[in-house]
Amino acid sequence: MNHKTRKWNFKGNEEQELVISMNSALRMLEENLNKEDQKPSIFLGYADPAGIFQTDPLAADAIADAVRSFQFNYYPPAVGVLEARRAIAKHLSCDLPYQLSPDDVFLTLGSIQAIEIITSIVAQPGANILLPRPGYPPYEANAVSNGLEVRQFDLIPEKGWEVDLDSVEAVADDNTVAMVMINPCNPCGNVFTYQHLKQVAETARKLGVFVISDEAFGLVTFGSNPFVPMGVFGTIVPVLTIGTLSKRWVVPGWRLGWIVTNEPNGFFEESGIVESIKNHLEVTSNPPTFLQGAIPQIFEQVK
Amino acid sequence: MNHKTRKWNFKGNEEQELVISMNSALRMLEENLNKEDQKPSIFLGYADPAGIFQTDPLAADAIADAVRSFQFNYYPPAVGVLEARRAIAKHLSCDLPYQLSPDDVFLTLGSIQAIEIITSIVAQPGANILLPRPGYPPYEANAVSNGLEVRQFDLIPEKGWEVDLDSVEAVADDNTVAMVMINPCNPCGNVFTYQHLKQVAETARKLGVFVISDEAFGLVTFGSNPFVPMGVFGTIVPVLTIGTLSKRWVVPGWRLGWIVTNEPNGFFEESGIVESIKNHLEVTSNPPTFLQGAIPQIFEQVK
Repeated sequence: MNHKTRKWNFKGNEEQELVISMNSALRMLEENLNKEDQKPSIFLGYADPAGIFQTDPLAADAIADAVRSFQFNYYPPAVGVLEARRAIAKHLSCDLPYQLSPDDVFLTLGSIQAIEIITSIVAQPGANILLPRPGYPPYEANAVSNGLEVRQFDLIPEKGWEVDLDSVEAVADDNTVAMVMINPCNPCGNVFTYQHLKQVAETARKLGVFVISDEAFGLVTFGSNPFVPMGVFGTIVPVLTIGTLSKRWVVPGWRLGWIVTNEPNGFFEESGIVESIKNHLEVTSNPPTFLQGAIPQIFEQVK
Repeated sequence: MNHKTRKWNFKGNEEQELVISMNSALRMLEENLNKEDQKPSIFLGYADPAGIFQTDPLAADAIADAVRSFQFNYYPPAVGVLEARRAIAKHLSCDLPYQLSPDDVFLTLGSIQAIEIITSIVAQPGANILLPRPGYPPYEANAVSNGLEVRQFDLIPEKGWEVDLDSVEAVADDNTVAMVMINPCNPCGNVFTYQHLKQVAETARKLGVFVISDEAFGLVTFGSNPFVPMGVFGTIVPVLTIGTLSKRWVVPGWRLGWIVTNEPNGFFEESGIVESIKNHLEVTSNPPTFLQGAIPQIFEQVK
C-alpha cells in the first residue's frame, strides 16, 4: 500500500488557501509562466529600494562588528536589546518636544510585525479601527484576521491627500479604539503638515481613540512639506509610532522595526497597552539579537 | 482636561493578559526585585548555550560576508533564499536514503515560527494533535491558541523515555492529524533508536497521521545512541522536520530555522500542506535576507 492509496487524516488548511495575498498572486503568475517561451518577462513584485539603491557600507560594518563581537548570539530579550532601544529613543527624541525613554521602544520584525501586534492587541470584541482610504493593505488584512472591524475614512486628493476629518467623525463611535495615519503617506506619497496633524490629533482626542502613526517612510520624503512625527502631539492624544530601518537605510531585508509609545502622560502604561505589547512579544519571534546589537553603531555612524 | 480625566475607548487586551508565559513570569519576578537589596540575584532564565559557548568565528564571518556583499538587503522571498534552501537540502540529505530538493525546505524565524506555522496549518475544526508527555511547552501553547485539541501520549522513563506506543493508539482517532516527536528529546535528553523510530513511523502510518519531528537538537546528542533523522522513514509516513541553527551552531539569537517536507512520494504537495505553508509564509515575517544568504558558507565552512 503506497501513500496514494493510504487514507491520511490530514490536509492543508482550506481557510488559509482562501487568503490571496499580493505575494501569492504574483507567485501563481510566476509558477504558471510558459517556461518554453523565450520572451523576456517583467518582474511584477512590489517596490524594493534595495534593488536600486545600496545602503551605506558603514551600516553593513555595524552588523559585521556586532556578529563578530560574539556578544549578541543569545536569545533576544522579548522587548529588544536595551542598547538598541536606548539608541532609537535618543534618535527619535531629536524631533520631539519631550524625551523618549528606552522603555517606550519595542523592537519588531520589520513594520509588518508591529502592525500584527498592534491590531491583535486592540481587537477586543466589538471594537473597530479607522483606516485611511487609500491605504496600506496589511492594516486591513491584520485587522480582519484578528476579528477587528475595519471602518474607512477618506483622504482628499484635491487637498493633497489630507484626511477628511468629517469622514473620520462620521464613521467613529464608542467602539472605535484607534485610527491609522501613514505619514509620509503610503500609497499617496504626500507628507502631512504640522497644522493638519495637529487637527488629526485633536479629532482623535475628541473621539477618545489613539493614533497609530506609521512612519516607515519617515525621512524619505517628496515635495516641500517637512516631515513631522505624530509623536509631537503625544500630549494631545496617545500615539503609537511604527518605524523601521527598511526605507531610510535601504535595507528592507534586515527586517528590523519598532513600536514606540509617544505618550508622555503614561496612559499606554495605565491602560494595559504596554503590558499587552510585552506579552505579545514574549510569545512570538523577535529580531535576531546581533541585528539589534548593531543599532547603536548604525545610528551613530550612518547619517 | 488631561489624559487622566479624558475618557479613552481603548485598553490592553485582557485575554492576552491571561497568557502567562515562562518569560512573563520571569519578567514579573525581575521587575519586583527589591532594588534596595544589595544581595546578588540569580538569573532564572531558560538555558541559553550562547551564554557559555561561542560559535565558530567562521559562522560569524559568513554573516559579515553576506551583509557586506550587498546582495541580500532586499525583502526575503516568502519561502526563503534559494541558495540557502539548496544548502540545507544538501546538508540534510547526507543522512537520508533519498535526496531532498530545495523545494522541500522552508526557512523560518527559529524553530518557534516553524511550530507556529505547522500548528496553524493543521488546525481544522475538530482536529487534534498528539504531543509527548513530558514535552516542549510551545507545542501545547500554539496548538491551543490555534484551536487545535491537544492529546498526550507518554514517554516511558524506565525504557529510556521511549514512546508508549499503546498510549499513542489509545488517544488517537480519525480526527488526529499529526503526532510530535522531539529527537533528541527535549526535555528528557534521550536519543531515540533507529528501531524505535521505525515503530513510531509504522504506528503513525497505521493511524493515518503525519509526524512532526522536532530535531532542533539534531547533532547535539548525549549517550551512545546515534542520532537518526525521522525523515529516514519518510517512505513509511510523511514527516515534517523542524530544524534550526540555534543549538548546533550555538546561535539561538540568530533566529534561523526551517521546516522540511520529508516525503519522497509528494503527499504533502498533494494534500495541500505545502501550499498552506507557502501561504502562511507569504503573510508573516521572514528571517532577514542576509542571514539566509550566509547559510551556504556556514554549512560549507563550519564543521
